[in-house]
Amino acid sequence: MRPDPRCGSVARVQANDINPGPCSLGIDLGGTHARAAVVDASGRLLSTSKGTLTDRSPEAVVEAISHAVQAALEAVPSVDVVHCGVGVAAQLEPGSGRVLVAPNLGWREVPFGALLAAKLKQKVRVVNDLTAAAWGEHRAGAGKGVEDVYVLFVGSGVGSAIIAGGKLLHGATGVAGELGHIKVVRDGRLCGCGEHGCLEAYVGGHNLIAQMKEAVKEAGSRGLLMELAEGDLEKLNPAILEQAALGEDPLARRIYDQACRFLGMAAANQVTVLNPARLILGGGVLSHCPGMVKQVKESVFALASQVSRKHVEVCEAALGDDSGLIGAALLATEQPG
Amino acid sequence: MRPDPRCGSVARVQANDINPGPCSLGIDLGGTHARAAVVDASGRLLSTSKGTLTDRSPEAVVEAISHAVQAALEAVPSVDVVHCGVGVAAQLEPGSGRVLVAPNLGWREVPFGALLAAKLKQKVRVVNDLTAAAWGEHRAGAGKGVEDVYVLFVGSGVGSAIIAGGKLLHGATGVAGELGHIKVVRDGRLCGCGEHGCLEAYVGGHNLIAQMKEAVKEAGSRGLLMELAEGDLEKLNPAILEQAALGEDPLARRIYDQACRFLGMAAANQVTVLNPARLILGGGVLSHCPGMVKQVKESVFALASQVSRKHVEVCEAALGDDSGLIGAALLATEQPG
Repeated sequence: MRPDPRCGSVARVQANDINPGPCSLGIDLGGTHARAAVVDASGRLLSTSKGTLTDRSPEAVVEAISHAVQAALEAVPSVDVVHCGVGVAAQLEPGSGRVLVAPNLGWREVPFGALLAAKLKQKVRVVNDLTAAAWGEHRAGAGKGVEDVYVLFVGSGVGSAIIAGGKLLHGATGVAGELGHIKVVRDGRLCGCGEHGCLEAYVGGHNLIAQMKEAVKEAGSRGLLMELAEGDLEKLNPAILEQAALGEDPLARRIYDQACRFLGMAAANQVTVLNPARLILGGGVLSHCPGMVKQVKESVFALASQVSRKHVEVCEAALGDDSGLIGAALLATEQPG
Repeated sequence: MRPDPRCGSVARVQANDINPGPCSLGIDLGGTHARAAVVDASGRLLSTSKGTLTDRSPEAVVEAISHAVQAALEAVPSVDVVHCGVGVAAQLEPGSGRVLVAPNLGWREVPFGALLAAKLKQKVRVVNDLTAAAWGEHRAGAGKGVEDVYVLFVGSGVGSAIIAGGKLLHGATGVAGELGHIKVVRDGRLCGCGEHGCLEAYVGGHNLIAQMKEAVKEAGSRGLLMELAEGDLEKLNPAILEQAALGEDPLARRIYDQACRFLGMAAANQVTVLNPARLILGGGVLSHCPGMVKQVKESVFALASQVSRKHVEVCEAALGDDSGLIGAALLATEQPG
């Protein structure tokens, strides 16, 4: 029987198509851009908008975000937006929305959440950008469907997030997951945090590039690394490192193998301790270095404890740059506080 | 004014003294003994009882536990016992009470929870012994009053438990916390688990003793180690190792310093990743080696990330051998499942 177009159920389906239910605003604040999106409850992006930051003062940044938000909202005028979450690359005071330090923005002690809430006339939840991205992957990306997830991001820095029993593990002061600053070498290489021997000092994108530059300068500008960078030190990047290492360039090999070894063991050890159902690998460095992803996977299956590795799936992040937008929006709705 | 002995409030206080409210049974099953206790809701031991295991067949062990339970119950006849929890040194099937492997008891695939429940005519919650001990410390010992605790035990083996937001982190298959089997040396020393380079292979009590024996045999039976052991290899133990190392015996120094270095870095790195309010150090090796505890504390404050170490307290376990009894009883009441 053909359904009566006037009957309740068909009308509801049509209404659902037009109106996706209560949605949230997600905002991703980087060092150069602010993005905003309207996201539905399943993590689908309904509209997105992006603004460039020309002035990094808190007031100007809040203004730029507000424009991006307006544009994202205007694209889906009929949608009901309930919550608002914003991810920012910063150390935050737990719960208050206050930025303690945001190096990319040059901020210290900025009441960012309060400023943005006043501007948007809406309650705003401020979270760390990596937490937002990990939550996005968990709810709408590579971590969908499981409750115990460990998300490891290698970009310019190295960070991780622990999701246990479907909840984010925050730690006592909200800084759990700082895998980049575990020590892998006692009195080792100087890290951006001021300490020595951190994982990030060997594996983070900035540090991979710094190590390449140091090695090239020491050895003179010969070899595959500089060939691939067309003779320009400033063109060196992690993808070139991987290419040169796989091409058996000895300088590249040393830096690359060391990075893979430290990262692989750190990932395996966290799988041993946390016993996740899924390990998700993401971030700019890993998305450009498939060989490194392969080595980390192999390390997990070689080095994690037998009982933990037997049940873990290792996958790559699925949402790319959208994970932070989606995660900030969903976190604001799903895990307030 | 002297209180009227007939007035309600005094009567209630007296009643509370006699009847401490709903209590639980806690059972701690080791390889040689079974202990049972009646525990009140605050983790206070009201009675304890201990039985020796002469026969390790599941039926005989259940019988011995039953006797210990009867004795503990008979000592406090007026008490209302509601739940029953048992901690056992075993790998368990999550949720079912089934022991997969218990090396100390020589068990494989034993439906222990079901056997014990039938015998006691009561529902029984079976948990790993270390989980029980950690929960005891969290609720009634050194972890009281905080929600985010990391408990690290070094005894014959090395294990840990993560308590986050007041809840135990179980992991996807119930084996989270296996710090003893993180890798600290690639292709390193053989561990009891069959893998190479585990933390436990360098730091666990059995392995400290094995390393001392190997070193003494290699070097001939001279030196402080054998002097402290009165010439008897079988008397070597972790306390002697520490004493000899602090006395600058070179054999002892090498083994001891390596153990402290690996353990200190592992503890620091878990503090970095988990951001606990409190790190609790316990277990037979650490309780006999105050120098090792001191070195682990120093490592945490030297090597954990700045943001994590700033807020962590490092303390020693407070309940000794009772932590498992207390924790098993409280877990059965407080975190069923």
